[in-house]
Amino acid sequence: MNIICNTQKLLDGINIALKAIPGKSTMAILECMVIEAKEGVIKLVSNDLEIGIETIIEGDIKEEGSVAVNAKLLFEIIRKLKLDEIKMNVDGNYVINISDGKSKFNISAKSPEEFPFLPAIVKNDSIVISQFTLKEIIRQTVFSSSDNENTKIMTGELFEIKEDMLKVVSLDGHRISIRKVRLKNSYEDNSVIIPGKTLIEISKILNGGIEDNVTIYFTEKHALFEFDQTIFLSRLIEGDYYKIDKMLSSDYETKLTVNRTEMLECIDRTTTLIKESEKKPVIIDIKDDSMGFSIHSATGSMDEKVNVTKEGNDILIGFNPRFLMDALRVIDDEEITIYMINPKAQCFIKNEDESYIYLILPVNFKS
Amino acid sequence: MNIICNTQKLLDGINIALKAIPGKSTMAILECMVIEAKEGVIKLVSNDLEIGIETIIEGDIKEEGSVAVNAKLLFEIIRKLKLDEIKMNVDGNYVINISDGKSKFNISAKSPEEFPFLPAIVKNDSIVISQFTLKEIIRQTVFSSSDNENTKIMTGELFEIKEDMLKVVSLDGHRISIRKVRLKNSYEDNSVIIPGKTLIEISKILNGGIEDNVTIYFTEKHALFEFDQTIFLSRLIEGDYYKIDKMLSSDYETKLTVNRTEMLECIDRTTTLIKESEKKPVIIDIKDDSMGFSIHSATGSMDEKVNVTKEGNDILIGFNPRFLMDALRVIDDEEITIYMINPKAQCFIKNEDESYIYLILPVNFKS
Repeated sequence: MNIICNTQKLLDGINIALKAIPGKSTMAILECMVIEAKEGVIKLVSNDLEIGIETIIEGDIKEEGSVAVNAKLLFEIIRKLKLDEIKMNVDGNYVINISDGKSKFNISAKSPEEFPFLPAIVKNDSIVISQFTLKEIIRQTVFSSSDNENTKIMTGELFEIKEDMLKVVSLDGHRISIRKVRLKNSYEDNSVIIPGKTLIEISKILNGGIEDNVTIYFTEKHALFEFDQTIFLSRLIEGDYYKIDKMLSSDYETKLTVNRTEMLECIDRTTTLIKESEKKPVIIDIKDDSMGFSIHSATGSMDEKVNVTKEGNDILIGFNPRFLMDALRVIDDEEITIYMINPKAQCFIKNEDESYIYLILPVNFKS
Repeated sequence: MNIICNTQKLLDGINIALKAIPGKSTMAILECMVIEAKEGVIKLVSNDLEIGIETIIEGDIKEEGSVAVNAKLLFEIIRKLKLDEIKMNVDGNYVINISDGKSKFNISAKSPEEFPFLPAIVKNDSIVISQFTLKEIIRQTVFSSSDNENTKIMTGELFEIKEDMLKVVSLDGHRISIRKVRLKNSYEDNSVIIPGKTLIEISKILNGGIEDNVTIYFTEKHALFEFDQTIFLSRLIEGDYYKIDKMLSSDYETKLTVNRTEMLECIDRTTTLIKESEKKPVIIDIKDDSMGFSIHSATGSMDEKVNVTKEGNDILIGFNPRFLMDALRVIDDEEITIYMINPKAQCFIKNEDESYIYLILPVNFKS
């Protein structure tokens, strides 16, 4: 292999492919990125067996070939080269010579023979969504997926397509986050569970442009995201997702409208008095047009009132402050509406057309 | 105690006093900051027994008094209050009530009775130096002090005053850093060893203004830095500093002038091939008008040449790349001059008037 590329474009490509390089692996080949120059195209390929990435970089191919090189080392070297153009040349023993014309590196690399290249995917079922929207709905839901591998399905997010509606759901047993977006086209009904980790990694490399699209292909075992010069393949989580519709009652006894930032900052202040291990609830006392927040811990106590517009009953209810804050942080609206039934029942933060719904279970407390 | 202060000014003061709060301490009182309101002055006081800080904050005293409150908790609370003015009120049981008029915190605090207040310092010997210069000379030398407590004296920096010259020295057995600055006035000869940790903390709170001065008072056991509204007291390290004059020969066999950034970036690139544990030297081959850098490790090899202006002999010499980089990073000059004697003898990076001297020992290598 013998290629010439632009330093910055190569670095951008490496940064994308790095997202499928495991932190530590017992298989040295997985810590490698394959550089493949074939039929006029230079590709970087990485695969941690959960996520696989292929990204194309511009460049001149002087001689076709491919090589597997330690990904982090390659990144460190390219990042520190300052001249515009990089030449990479691989000899018969898979020693790779990297030079910007000034620095010359010789690195022992590997044959890509043992590398787990991405499986071929049949591109039938697909949806198209803007990069901006996909990035947003991931940010607005992924925080409430679980990282406990014992409840595997909770570590993923449901992507459910019905005609032109995409519904994304995550839950962890204490809360549910739901985002619905209308797509430009209608599609056949479909529903898959995509690992939360995959979604976090992909949202890091989406450029987030409103005009730039992602095509997502679904197969029985995989979701394939295609965008820019990159394909991003993820395994799906197998199994049936939780039936959540029964929990989404539209009954309520108390309906509040409140300023999101004010409520968020107030709850944030209560957390200064709680140690990570303490699990103290913030107690919310809704009375007439005010929402009182209070916390009592070994460290001290805190009280604050926020103005609200209320319909229905007064209520005294306790929450894990982090669960409220997580939801409040990702909502874009400045005025939010909260629906409560009683101190033992789920509470909802949602907008009129239910394009977002955050369900949070309250916690018991001694009043 | 009952006081009112501006939120931002209080926070600035807390940030300064936090520098003498230990990360963890077996004495709970040391994790406290004392707020003292007396004779029209509000002071924050902290003391980890190595460093003590007193800083004055503006505010109204409604009732004199003092209290010792957990410093990090106080910081977390004040940082999250958004309104401009903060009232603090302490009752007879040392419960402190903190409010910005909206949030109300009640925190259990302590009597300041057991707090180790700063000793009174006799202000005889002193020097005056600009904050800018003090901050610079710390940055340019402190990296080569040692953090090994077994060689206590190496953990400090020599501050030596002779007439109007301040010389600052740090060393760790492999290298010596020296900065000399001319003061505006002449002083009696003096020499003290100030802990490197102290200097790192003080440089974080110096505003660094050229027009703003620091007065440093010296006693047998302490150095007291007085600036802005703050006094910063440090213990001195006892003992005699190393005699370094013998090592500062002005003989050389090779004299080089080289671009600092080019040399720094080149050495930085060699380090991509060395693991922390490996201790591989960078080998420098000076021949005619070029300085060749090369490294060979288990990972691979790297070669690069940099243009230099040379007087004297060719030389092949090895260095710990980190030691060279540490010195090159803190020098302000873009063209630097390096003096070498032979591959076993110390090398010098210094300027004409020797306002900075960096001595670095080479390392052995197999050529």
